[in-house]
Amino acid sequence: MPHNVRVCIIGAGVAGLKAAHTLLTAPNTPFGSTDVVVVEAQHRVGGRIKTDTTRSKLGAQYDLGASWFHDALNNSVLRECVADGSFDVRSDGYFDDKTIAYYVSEVSGRLDAEEMKLRQVVEDIESFIEIYYANHDSPDMSLRDVVGLYMEQQQAFLSEEQINYCSRMVRYLELWHGIDHVHMSGKYAVMSHQGRNLYNRKGFSHLINLLMQTVGPSVLTGRPVKRIQRKSRGTSSRHIAETADGSVFSADYLVVTVPHSVLTLDAGHEHGITWEPPLPRSMTDSISNMHFGALGKVVLEFESVWWDNNEDRFSILANGRAECGSGSAKPFEYPLYVVNYARIYAGTPSLVVLIQSPVTEHLEANPHLAWPYMRSMLSKLKVPTCITVPEPINVIVTDWSLNPYSRGSYCAPHVGDDPIDEVVQLSGEQDLCGLGAGSTVRFAGEHTISHGAGCVHGAFDSGERAARWILAHNESSNAASS
Amino acid sequence: MPHNVRVCIIGAGVAGLKAAHTLLTAPNTPFGSTDVVVVEAQHRVGGRIKTDTTRSKLGAQYDLGASWFHDALNNSVLRECVADGSFDVRSDGYFDDKTIAYYVSEVSGRLDAEEMKLRQVVEDIESFIEIYYANHDSPDMSLRDVVGLYMEQQQAFLSEEQINYCSRMVRYLELWHGIDHVHMSGKYAVMSHQGRNLYNRKGFSHLINLLMQTVGPSVLTGRPVKRIQRKSRGTSSRHIAETADGSVFSADYLVVTVPHSVLTLDAGHEHGITWEPPLPRSMTDSISNMHFGALGKVVLEFESVWWDNNEDRFSILANGRAECGSGSAKPFEYPLYVVNYARIYAGTPSLVVLIQSPVTEHLEANPHLAWPYMRSMLSKLKVPTCITVPEPINVIVTDWSLNPYSRGSYCAPHVGDDPIDEVVQLSGEQDLCGLGAGSTVRFAGEHTISHGAGCVHGAFDSGERAARWILAHNESSNAASS
Repeated sequence: MPHNVRVCIIGAGVAGLKAAHTLLTAPNTPFGSTDVVVVEAQHRVGGRIKTDTTRSKLGAQYDLGASWFHDALNNSVLRECVADGSFDVRSDGYFDDKTIAYYVSEVSGRLDAEEMKLRQVVEDIESFIEIYYANHDSPDMSLRDVVGLYMEQQQAFLSEEQINYCSRMVRYLELWHGIDHVHMSGKYAVMSHQGRNLYNRKGFSHLINLLMQTVGPSVLTGRPVKRIQRKSRGTSSRHIAETADGSVFSADYLVVTVPHSVLTLDAGHEHGITWEPPLPRSMTDSISNMHFGALGKVVLEFESVWWDNNEDRFSILANGRAECGSGSAKPFEYPLYVVNYARIYAGTPSLVVLIQSPVTEHLEANPHLAWPYMRSMLSKLKVPTCITVPEPINVIVTDWSLNPYSRGSYCAPHVGDDPIDEVVQLSGEQDLCGLGAGSTVRFAGEHTISHGAGCVHGAFDSGERAARWILAHNESSNAASS
Repeated sequence: MPHNVRVCIIGAGVAGLKAAHTLLTAPNTPFGSTDVVVVEAQHRVGGRIKTDTTRSKLGAQYDLGASWFHDALNNSVLRECVADGSFDVRSDGYFDDKTIAYYVSEVSGRLDAEEMKLRQVVEDIESFIEIYYANHDSPDMSLRDVVGLYMEQQQAFLSEEQINYCSRMVRYLELWHGIDHVHMSGKYAVMSHQGRNLYNRKGFSHLINLLMQTVGPSVLTGRPVKRIQRKSRGTSSRHIAETADGSVFSADYLVVTVPHSVLTLDAGHEHGITWEPPLPRSMTDSISNMHFGALGKVVLEFESVWWDNNEDRFSILANGRAECGSGSAKPFEYPLYVVNYARIYAGTPSLVVLIQSPVTEHLEANPHLAWPYMRSMLSKLKVPTCITVPEPINVIVTDWSLNPYSRGSYCAPHVGDDPIDEVVQLSGEQDLCGLGAGSTVRFAGEHTISHGAGCVHGAFDSGERAARWILAHNESSNAASS
C-alpha cells in the first residue's frame, strides 16, 4: 500500500529540509506534517552539512562539510539566522580573511608576497581570464593552460619571482572547486562573490537542527529512493517514489534534491535511481556536461600551537613542475589550504586542511596516510623557535567521496563543461527546458541554482524556490477547480 | 580666403594627434600632410599630457598630466609602444601597486590595515555598491551616502576600527575621479579595470613626440577655434572652423577633440565655441549630464628621502567628521594620495601628491599654500628616526584648472550624471544619436569613449576610431562617385 502524501521530498539535506520547512510554515499553508514527507537515504539528516562534536580530543567541533557563509553581503541563510536571532555575527561568526600567508618548498619561512607583489599578479591573472573569455569564441581549456597563456603573453611584465610563484598561487581555486587545475575549466574557474566569507563558529548543524524542529515529524531516514515514476493525467499528476526497502510514496508533488553525483548514476548502478519515463535527453545531457568535485578536509589536532598564530590561513603551494592526475598524492604535488583553528576558536590547537580531488579520494580511502602526506608541507608553517614539528594527537579525515549518497563535495566545472545548462534544465523556470516550468516534479540542491551554487545558501534558496512554486501551483489549481 | 583641407582636426591632444597620425599612415591612405590640419588652441601640443623636464631642482621629470598606463592588460597605447620598441616595460615602466600604506591624523605611524582587515572591508563596500546598483531602481546618491548605507546595514559585521577607518579609505576614489565624495555619484564611483596600473617612467610626452614626428607638419598651434559651421549639401558636406585670429579652415571632415569642459561652455563664453547650426538638444543634454573633475598634482622635492622608502604609495585619510565643499582646504579635510617617486626613479627624493576638486582649484590658484596645507598631513609619513619633517626645496603645482583650454582634468560623474549617454551621443556610432552615425563631423577625446574613459588610451582609441571612420567613409564615397 503506498503512503499517500501531497508532497514527497527526496533528500533531507538543507535543500530538502528548507523546502519542507517552507511548505509547512508558509502563511495559510494547506500543508500539514502528514501532507509532506521527506525521504532520506542515510540514517542521518543534513546531507553535506555535518558538524562533528564527537571525534575531537580537544573538545572542539568541526564542520566536516560546509563551514563558511559565502557571499556574506547577499546570503539568505545568514540573513535569516541573524534576523531570527539564532546567529550572532560577533560571537558566532569570524571573518577569517586576513591576507593568506604563502609557503613554498624551496624557501624557508613565509613568502614575502607583499614585497614581490604576488597578489597583484594573481588578480591580474584573474582579470586576464575574464577578458579572455569575454570573447565567446575563446576555447575552454584547463585553468593550468589559460594561466600558461597569461604567463606566455605577459612575461615581459613580470618578475622572475612572479613568474615562479603566481601560477602556483592561482591554484588556490582547486580548494574552492575541489578539483585540480588540469581538470578545471579555465572558463569557469574564477568566481565572482557577493561579499566576504564568514566562518560559522556555531557549526552549520544549528541550521539543520532549526529546520528539523518544524520538519522533523515529516522526515523518514534510511530510505534510499530507487525508482521514481512520473505520472500525469490531464491537469493532475500523481508521482511515485519507491525506496530500497520497498516503501512506496505517492504524491502530487515531488521535490528531488539528490546530489548531482547521484543524478549522474546509471539506473543499473547500486545507488542509481530509475526514472519512469526516463528523464528527457536535454536533462541527462546537461547533467553529463557537469562534473562533481571532491573537496575534503583533514583535521589535525595538536597538544599546542606551533605555527604562526597571527595568521588566519596558510597556503602551501605545489611545486611548479609536477603534473597532476595520479591517484596517489606526493607532497608538494598539490597545494594545501590550511585554516588556523586557533584563530577561529581562540586557543584550540588544530589546523583544518582543505584538499582537492584526486588527493581527497586517496586520503579519504587511506586516512592513515593523511599525516605522512602533509607532514613535510605543513612543517613549512613552523615558527623559527619551533625545532621539530610535533605529531598530531588526533587526525580526522572526511569521507565524502566514500559516502555513496554524497560521492564527493559539489558540482565543479571540468574543461568543456557547461555549468549554466544544468541550472537551466533543473531549476524548472523555463517552459521548454527540463521537465518544463509546469512540471510538478521540482529539483533542488546546490547544483540547480546559480547564485550560491555549491553553497549552503544556494541549496537553501533552491529548496525554498521549489516549495514556493508548489504553494503557488496548489493555490491556482484549487482556484481553478472551485 | 579659407584654407581648404580634406580633414580639419580641432585639438592637438593625444586624440587629435592619433587621429591625424592614423589618417596619414593608413595603408594606401589618400590623405597627405597638406590634406590634414590639426588646429590647436594652445602654443603647445599634448593637451593633458605634459612631461615637465625644466622645473625640477633634482634633474627629474614629472608627468603633470597623465602618468600611468591604466588597464595594462588591455591598453592599446602600451601595446603599440611595446610592439614598436619605443617602450621597454622593464626599464621604462614600474608597477607601483604595492599595497598602499595608510595614515590617519589620530594615530602615529602607519595603520595596521592588515591586522584590522581594512582592505577586505573596503572591497566589501565596493561589492555592496555593485549589488545595490545592480537593482536599476536604486536611486543614485553620493559616494558618501551609499557608503553610509553600507555602514548602517553592515554595522553588526564590522569592528569599531573598520567602521572608523573604512569609509574614509573608500575616499581613495576621489583621487581617481578628481572630485570629492559628496559630489561623486555613488552609482558610477567604482570602476572596473582591465589589469594593473603601470607607471610610465619614460614620461608620456614620448608618445606625443612619436606622433608629432609624422603629424608635426600638419599642426598649427595658438589657434583657438571660436566657430564651427556644419554644412551639408546632398551627400557632400563642407564644414568651416574659424579660429580666434580670423583664420578659416574649410574641410570635408571635422574631428572635434576639445575637452568636455570646453563643450559645456556657452557660445558667449570667452573660450566657448559657437556651433552653426547649434548642436542638437540630445547632445547638449548629454553633455550637461556629466561633470568635469579637477585632479591636480603637487610635486614636492626634498634634499633627501625622509619617509618610509619601502612603500610605493601612501594614503593619508581625511578625518571622519569633516564635510566637504568649502573653497579653501583645511588639513585632513580631504584625503591625499602620495606617490613615492624615490621608488619609481631609484633615489629621487620627491613625492607626488594627488589632489581632488575643490582642493585642486584652491591650490592651483595659490601654489604657495600647497606645502602649508600638506605639511601636517605628510608629516605622518615620517620614519621614527626622522625628528622633524624638512622643508621641500622645490614645490611644483599643476595648473589644469586655471588653463582655459583644459579647465580641470577629465570627466567625472556627479550624483545623477549619466556617463554613458555622452559617449553614446558623441561616439558617432549610432544613427539616431548625436549628429548621427553618418555625420562627417566626428568627436574624439577621453569623454567620447567607454573603455579608457579619462585615460590616455581612451583618448588615443577615440582618435583612431574617428580616423578609421573617415578613411572608410572617404573610400565608399569615392567608390559611389566613380
